[in-house]
Amino acid sequence: MEQRVARLWSLALTIVASVLANTAARAQASFLPSWNDGPAKHAIVNFVQRTTDPASMQFVPPEERVATFDQDGTLWVEQPIYAQVVYCMDRVPVLVKQKPELASVEPFRTVLSGDRAAMARLAPEDLLQIVTATLTGMSVEEFQAEVRGWLARARDPRWRRPYTDLTYLPMQELLQYLRANGYKTYIVTGGGQDFVRVYSQLVYGVPPEQVVGSAGGTEYGYDRQGKPVLTKEPKLLLNDDHAGKPEGIHLMIGRRPRAAFGNSSGDRQMLEYTSAGDGLRLAMLVLHDDAKREYAYGPAEGLPSTKVGTFTQALYEEGKKDGWVVISVKRDWKRIFSFDPAN
Amino acid sequence: MEQRVARLWSLALTIVASVLANTAARAQASFLPSWNDGPAKHAIVNFVQRTTDPASMQFVPPEERVATFDQDGTLWVEQPIYAQVVYCMDRVPVLVKQKPELASVEPFRTVLSGDRAAMARLAPEDLLQIVTATLTGMSVEEFQAEVRGWLARARDPRWRRPYTDLTYLPMQELLQYLRANGYKTYIVTGGGQDFVRVYSQLVYGVPPEQVVGSAGGTEYGYDRQGKPVLTKEPKLLLNDDHAGKPEGIHLMIGRRPRAAFGNSSGDRQMLEYTSAGDGLRLAMLVLHDDAKREYAYGPAEGLPSTKVGTFTQALYEEGKKDGWVVISVKRDWKRIFSFDPAN
Repeated sequence: MEQRVARLWSLALTIVASVLANTAARAQASFLPSWNDGPAKHAIVNFVQRTTDPASMQFVPPEERVATFDQDGTLWVEQPIYAQVVYCMDRVPVLVKQKPELASVEPFRTVLSGDRAAMARLAPEDLLQIVTATLTGMSVEEFQAEVRGWLARARDPRWRRPYTDLTYLPMQELLQYLRANGYKTYIVTGGGQDFVRVYSQLVYGVPPEQVVGSAGGTEYGYDRQGKPVLTKEPKLLLNDDHAGKPEGIHLMIGRRPRAAFGNSSGDRQMLEYTSAGDGLRLAMLVLHDDAKREYAYGPAEGLPSTKVGTFTQALYEEGKKDGWVVISVKRDWKRIFSFDPAN
Repeated sequence: MEQRVARLWSLALTIVASVLANTAARAQASFLPSWNDGPAKHAIVNFVQRTTDPASMQFVPPEERVATFDQDGTLWVEQPIYAQVVYCMDRVPVLVKQKPELASVEPFRTVLSGDRAAMARLAPEDLLQIVTATLTGMSVEEFQAEVRGWLARARDPRWRRPYTDLTYLPMQELLQYLRANGYKTYIVTGGGQDFVRVYSQLVYGVPPEQVVGSAGGTEYGYDRQGKPVLTKEPKLLLNDDHAGKPEGIHLMIGRRPRAAFGNSSGDRQMLEYTSAGDGLRLAMLVLHDDAKREYAYGPAEGLPSTKVGTFTQALYEEGKKDGWVVISVKRDWKRIFSFDPAN
């Protein structure tokens, strides 16, 4: 019996291995259909082949295959305003219903007025106050339910679609391509960790435990029935942006990434930290240079800088020096969104 | 060609499935050889079978299979003193060599004296000072190298073996059994996250990213050559004990565990939080009641309480009420350590 089982195993494994070998070669070419041939796609395929081929000098053992992705502007649209900021603004009326005294207090009064121009002028301290008021004070389950409801209702102003439709198809393909080659894919976002975790599995195939983001503390306590409750507290544990990205990666993953993808100066330290590691590393920057199909911003191509997602000239220069690879939306992406085949 | 590949795949999968089904039944019995038959082993096997059988009402999808383990006193020996505290004490002479002025300052003077009785009397503030001085101020890579070196040299006082030999064989089998059934196993320790991550893969088969522990901050900066460096800072981000355990689980994993294993009042909230979830959950407490083969401590069996690993009567009562299962070292474990077949 044992012998028969062993023989069946061996037969099954042989078949699987031959099918895998057969598929692997074709997979390299067919995995990134929305990418145009060019330096960006070549850099990706070259990196994956050299780090996963056991005969390669740059081979990386499977457990060390870690790839980290910024979210806003790297995996999905961040213009004209971060989705999570819209969420917070949209929550203000609900909040004021619970605490009517806020209606006459700034910055809540401005948000309630619906005056988009005035809202755009809010100072960082005002935004922080809104963020704190709308993201804390409830149980983690209540927060998850609120975000789920909002994602189902909210529509972005340009395409009139759920925000979760606005992910970049080429980057989705890249996530899948890396995972198919044994890479564990992480989101490392300046956005709220609890916010992104609500939809990361469904939208990106990234499980919540592989989302690193700006994180507040929770407090463990009990509800009136004596059931344990974790309540979201207005205490910032990790500001996962700029230097906070490698710090967050160390805290939450404990390994230096082999590949990292970003689009703004908030990702600079993550890319530096990644490319400073031993062996072959891949650091890539998405350049938004396609005003027609998406947005154009960032000064690398002489485009006007905006408040969000600043791809500065300094970042561009550092990237050139360190061998980072620019992904031009205009040049490198055949399609941008899955919902628009004509894109 | 495509069709032939599909047919081969289908054949391979059928064979794999039949072999798996064949092996599964036997695996249940053979996976926990160091456990005596009894309520603890039965609770484990029952939990795993009911949560992994797709026909079961309590079936848990693979991505939600999370099991969390305390370390000290649950996965390895914590008596007479936590290994990490020994590490910190052992580091003091090295530290004093770098900063000679500390030699005449308390609590470093007491540690240097080697007077074990005086060291045992050190106050928590003194310990904190030693911990801070020995665990921070270096790069994360330097720290990892120091811990590796210490683990190779240090021997525990009773068995004269490396601390990493003192893991409980039945718990190692349990980790493997859960993983073989699709559970992701996490260590959730009051000990230092960076410390445990150095050996977690090698010793427990748990990768660093699945270790949640008390965590200090790091600071991102550059060395003299301009290379990025993460330096360990004396800033506590997460005190991963008591209420800090569910808080840490939310921060680092973002899912409520299906199974949790502990041995002391520091694990109470983690077990509460786990067993308060929907569906079938498993919460277990290791009771150290075998003075001959290991140590006996904790008052549940009328044994004297000690400073570490306090399994209090209150915890025992709460556990009974909530359906937690006690693992008696004396009764439930056939063998305790892999190095001693006679154990």
